[in-house]
Amino acid sequence: MSDAGLTAGGVLAGRLLETLAQATADAPGVTRVAYGPGERFAHALMREEAEKLGAVARVDAAGNLYLTRRGRDPALPAIVIGSHLDSVPHGGNFDGAAGVVAGLAVMAELVVQGIQLSRDLIVLVTRAEEAVWFPLSYPSSQAALGLLEPTALEAKRSDSGRSLADHMREEGFDPDAVRRGMPGIDASRIAAFVEVHIEQGPRLVAAGVPLGIVTGIAGGFRYVDAKCSGAYAHSGAEPRFARHDSVLGFADLVAGLEAEWDALEREGHEATITFGRVQSDPSQHGGSRVLGELGFTLDVRSAEAVVLERIEARLHALFAEVGTKRGVTFEAGPRFTWEPATMSQALIARLDRAAADLQMPAPHVPSGAGHDAATFAGANIPTAMLFVRNENGSHNPHEAMEIADLDQAIRLLLRFVTDFDKDQP
Amino acid sequence: MSDAGLTAGGVLAGRLLETLAQATADAPGVTRVAYGPGERFAHALMREEAEKLGAVARVDAAGNLYLTRRGRDPALPAIVIGSHLDSVPHGGNFDGAAGVVAGLAVMAELVVQGIQLSRDLIVLVTRAEEAVWFPLSYPSSQAALGLLEPTALEAKRSDSGRSLADHMREEGFDPDAVRRGMPGIDASRIAAFVEVHIEQGPRLVAAGVPLGIVTGIAGGFRYVDAKCSGAYAHSGAEPRFARHDSVLGFADLVAGLEAEWDALEREGHEATITFGRVQSDPSQHGGSRVLGELGFTLDVRSAEAVVLERIEARLHALFAEVGTKRGVTFEAGPRFTWEPATMSQALIARLDRAAADLQMPAPHVPSGAGHDAATFAGANIPTAMLFVRNENGSHNPHEAMEIADLDQAIRLLLRFVTDFDKDQP
Repeated sequence: MSDAGLTAGGVLAGRLLETLAQATADAPGVTRVAYGPGERFAHALMREEAEKLGAVARVDAAGNLYLTRRGRDPALPAIVIGSHLDSVPHGGNFDGAAGVVAGLAVMAELVVQGIQLSRDLIVLVTRAEEAVWFPLSYPSSQAALGLLEPTALEAKRSDSGRSLADHMREEGFDPDAVRRGMPGIDASRIAAFVEVHIEQGPRLVAAGVPLGIVTGIAGGFRYVDAKCSGAYAHSGAEPRFARHDSVLGFADLVAGLEAEWDALEREGHEATITFGRVQSDPSQHGGSRVLGELGFTLDVRSAEAVVLERIEARLHALFAEVGTKRGVTFEAGPRFTWEPATMSQALIARLDRAAADLQMPAPHVPSGAGHDAATFAGANIPTAMLFVRNENGSHNPHEAMEIADLDQAIRLLLRFVTDFDKDQP
Repeated sequence: MSDAGLTAGGVLAGRLLETLAQATADAPGVTRVAYGPGERFAHALMREEAEKLGAVARVDAAGNLYLTRRGRDPALPAIVIGSHLDSVPHGGNFDGAAGVVAGLAVMAELVVQGIQLSRDLIVLVTRAEEAVWFPLSYPSSQAALGLLEPTALEAKRSDSGRSLADHMREEGFDPDAVRRGMPGIDASRIAAFVEVHIEQGPRLVAAGVPLGIVTGIAGGFRYVDAKCSGAYAHSGAEPRFARHDSVLGFADLVAGLEAEWDALEREGHEATITFGRVQSDPSQHGGSRVLGELGFTLDVRSAEAVVLERIEARLHALFAEVGTKRGVTFEAGPRFTWEPATMSQALIARLDRAAADLQMPAPHVPSGAGHDAATFAGANIPTAMLFVRNENGSHNPHEAMEIADLDQAIRLLLRFVTDFDKDQP
């Protein structure tokens, strides 16, 4: 990678990402377990760099790290730039981390350019954003605002089987304070929350632009352990009329939900419907077996709550219809939900203006995946997100973001921050 | 179980099945691995009982056991009653074994009733009929006729990973002779081959009759390691247009094949289409994952070769159509086939007559599953099968055949054997 043409902040961002990749390598890719060693290393690295830049570090009860460059007027609410540092197992290096280093890069640019803001600039480094570790939506940013449900502390980490509270305590934090709802930061003291994140889809790659401005974050629901149950039978011997074939039941469900997806798109709505696991019981496998059970995961997302409700209703109607038609039964199992989040129109307008001033193309894009920013938007804090172009999606070792693209986001964010600080009383 | 009203042969059959169940119990159910200890025990048990009945035992190069009650005229071709003694893992006690003990029961009835046939009656005890052990169609009855393809000897047993030849040798048999095509019995010396087997479907239970006469044995083909490949992606981030979702591709394939099945049935054909395994890669599971690969097994059966050809052609057309529509590719993987077998009309007519004489209802039923009888029919030996009523299908520990029903088959078979022996020069 050449540093030519990058801002000082961009060079710093590239260097930090490189250090992270080396220290948390777990071929293929990186692994930074939530409340585990990789995340711990990453938090320590960011803290050290921020302190070099003159920032003050503070850690809350959940282990969120607040890196504050003081402004002139302590009475003004702060600008917060944040993201997470955990990764999925064998994931890519940029999902989460790119947003944190972008925040530090903006701070570095302020230092280099000798700019002092009137208000505090806080780089907020969260934890445990990847739901693969705890089956929760953004527990650490929820805890930062004192909003984490106490029951969430009992959620078990997928690799260890131990609770979120245990893991917080083990890392030296204070789950009891989290349980009492003690916030790490007062929501009314945040003027704007901005998260930079790699795009996890291909829209920016397809459009050929380095960054985009996010319009909203999809909400969704997920059934992680659904199944279609029929009856096992011998493929040759069981006549068609007597079959209760879970595979045919599942295929009908897929087709029925896809028809609903088609209908929604024709009406101008956006949604995604995904089966993330489809699995018959290996102990029951036989070439000559009618399958009596098929397990699956269903993940449904949309930025519109009404669309989510409609798909949910159709799902349950299909369970009944297909069940009757095929002689099978469906069990949905545990349901996991997260709310859609709308980005601040005022902040989007500011980002649009900053992009125009810098002559950067920055199209508006939706976020199908969830992000910590959803927590802040959900708490009525003005919130915005920037996506950085990235190839090959995320949650895999092949994430490919160019530092030059991240540098564009850093430039835009710096402009946004300084303008905001000037305009906003 | 009460022995009241059973023939002496029926009592013997019940006792042998009970001994087998106890000696090869592997809760739930029984396990008699092909060329393994359970099958070895079962062969020894049948040999011992047949010798008590005055039969002469002989074992061929593949380990098939021939239990011969000598007839008066050694020049006449023999009547052979046969089946296998292996079971699927944790299977039921009756699949295979019921046919062998029915043969011994007929022999016992001849002894008890003081009947000497003019021709030899041979109870042929085969091996390795359950394709779960070796991915082959009836290798041991093929070997009995000197018809086993030499390459089949290299097939690996699913539990041990070792070859059929190795396992034959380990049990004291002679795979080299099998490889040279040395038969265990001369096909021209078999006047009729009859196999008694539990029905593996629900037709006789539904009809409320203890036994049925089989019209034909379905042939079929199986793809044991097929897959649909697309691309893994993040469910929230990957927009619909960019997806290559293997689950949607698979669901389309299921629907397309089912439409073909519907069309065939409307035209009066019989077939079965079964997906015996549907499995995404556990190392790639994530609630938020578009699945890039889905593996499956496809099993297709019909008594009509033309129907099998039509489904095969449609399958490959669907691979192409769905592949284009969904941006996925299908790989069929290894193909495993077995030919349909027609039962002898002359023997069916004889069984019909015997049933009428005994005032037994014995409807004609198809066999969707394969049986050793298919090997003999395929070698142009006059072949017939009787099915005995059985609840809960087969290949599971819940097989439920009543000895009283098997006793009806024994009575019918005895009548068939004595009539055949009288009429047939």
